[in-house]
Amino acid sequence: MRYEEQKIEGRNAVLEAFRSGRTVDKLFVQDGCKEGSVLSITREARKQGTIISFVSRERLDAMSETGKHQGVIAQAAAYHYAQVEDILQIAEKKGEPPFIFLLDGIEDPHNLGAIIRTANLAGAHGVIIPKHRAVGLTAVVARTSAGALNYTPVAKVTNLSSAIEELKKRGMWFVCADMDGDLMYRQNLTGPIGLVIGNEGSGVGRLVKEKCDMTAAIPMKGDIDSLNASVAAGVLAYEIVRQRLAAGSGKGN
Amino acid sequence: MRYEEQKIEGRNAVLEAFRSGRTVDKLFVQDGCKEGSVLSITREARKQGTIISFVSRERLDAMSETGKHQGVIAQAAAYHYAQVEDILQIAEKKGEPPFIFLLDGIEDPHNLGAIIRTANLAGAHGVIIPKHRAVGLTAVVARTSAGALNYTPVAKVTNLSSAIEELKKRGMWFVCADMDGDLMYRQNLTGPIGLVIGNEGSGVGRLVKEKCDMTAAIPMKGDIDSLNASVAAGVLAYEIVRQRLAAGSGKGN
Repeated sequence: MRYEEQKIEGRNAVLEAFRSGRTVDKLFVQDGCKEGSVLSITREARKQGTIISFVSRERLDAMSETGKHQGVIAQAAAYHYAQVEDILQIAEKKGEPPFIFLLDGIEDPHNLGAIIRTANLAGAHGVIIPKHRAVGLTAVVARTSAGALNYTPVAKVTNLSSAIEELKKRGMWFVCADMDGDLMYRQNLTGPIGLVIGNEGSGVGRLVKEKCDMTAAIPMKGDIDSLNASVAAGVLAYEIVRQRLAAGSGKGN
Repeated sequence: MRYEEQKIEGRNAVLEAFRSGRTVDKLFVQDGCKEGSVLSITREARKQGTIISFVSRERLDAMSETGKHQGVIAQAAAYHYAQVEDILQIAEKKGEPPFIFLLDGIEDPHNLGAIIRTANLAGAHGVIIPKHRAVGLTAVVARTSAGALNYTPVAKVTNLSSAIEELKKRGMWFVCADMDGDLMYRQNLTGPIGLVIGNEGSGVGRLVKEKCDMTAAIPMKGDIDSLNASVAAGVLAYEIVRQRLAAGSGKGN
């Protein structure tokens, strides 16, 4: 996947790509667009010697894959996938117990982007996705991740169950998002942990679920079935954050 | 807004519209579409005497406002907005302290839909949105709310600050989502509460923020700026749920 060309679209995503030190090969800016954030982007581009082309809105619309370029499209080397090992090393370097998101078949790129964004802000060290039956790292994912994709490594594995088994041998515990599971407050989610989130419609697959050490349910008071997948991932991730903070400050759970 | 025609698109949204007892005037189903959930929908439609038309995929595509009809589009009376008073009455009927979401300028219909979905499942009694500079109840909102819009009332007010003042006189407290605010775990979020969520880019406006009694920040460990608005709303709403559950079970916070 390395070295392919990829489009980055939207002001936040493009600015973050520059700021994170990513190599941007070309920048396309809508002619006459002089708003503050666009000026910041062209300033960064000049600093880094990126070729800037000022083009018409129609040209940008035609180039756009997301339909939401906000006047700027950057062309950069494609996002490359990390190895699971890289994620563990980041945790080790930070001196933190590993905290990894595992996504069992997220199909909507907006959800994947929002989840990578959440993983970054919740302090997770990386995200693992399966090779098949799931969306990969596209321009829409990059845009909705609001730049998080530049910082949070995403690894792609052939088989999520095997990845979980391998990581268990390294001392990790796995908690499976499960509407019929145990209430999340009752689980001990401190330590080295993998949070497994399922597909938007069907949840976590049976084989993957069986590999997990525990389940976690979000309390539901309403009339409908389930939260949006990225919202559920956020609520569960922040229960882990809360328990880790409480454990760190010596207050227990 | 009452009695206008509105399209409901997507299998979940249409099925929930029937199940919640909404009057569906017409149902359009893609010819030859015989999957389980579509059969459930046509069964509900027949039960309620709704006219069913089997049409080509092209016809549905042309009718669709969301681009994601999944083979079914229903035509129903438009979603109508509730009054703030209706929301308070629901809380009273349930014998619960009011729990209301106030959205200060959400622009993305996917975010609004996901937030209404979260409000429903977190046990909030309703959602208040402003008349201006915000998205209203559209077909995309209905679809992404996954049916929650049929259960959770949404009120539209001219001025969010005045609405907060009125509700304060009725004994409610307001907490403002604020990245620079006090850590959410430190606030007492149990009693009658309004959760104020800001615009995707600019957060909660100054005037609205000044009316709030307290701020609540989600702990952020990452490299980027902020969570997706609907994820942030979910995390904050579930901190309220957690505190309410803890208070209810006599464990305190």
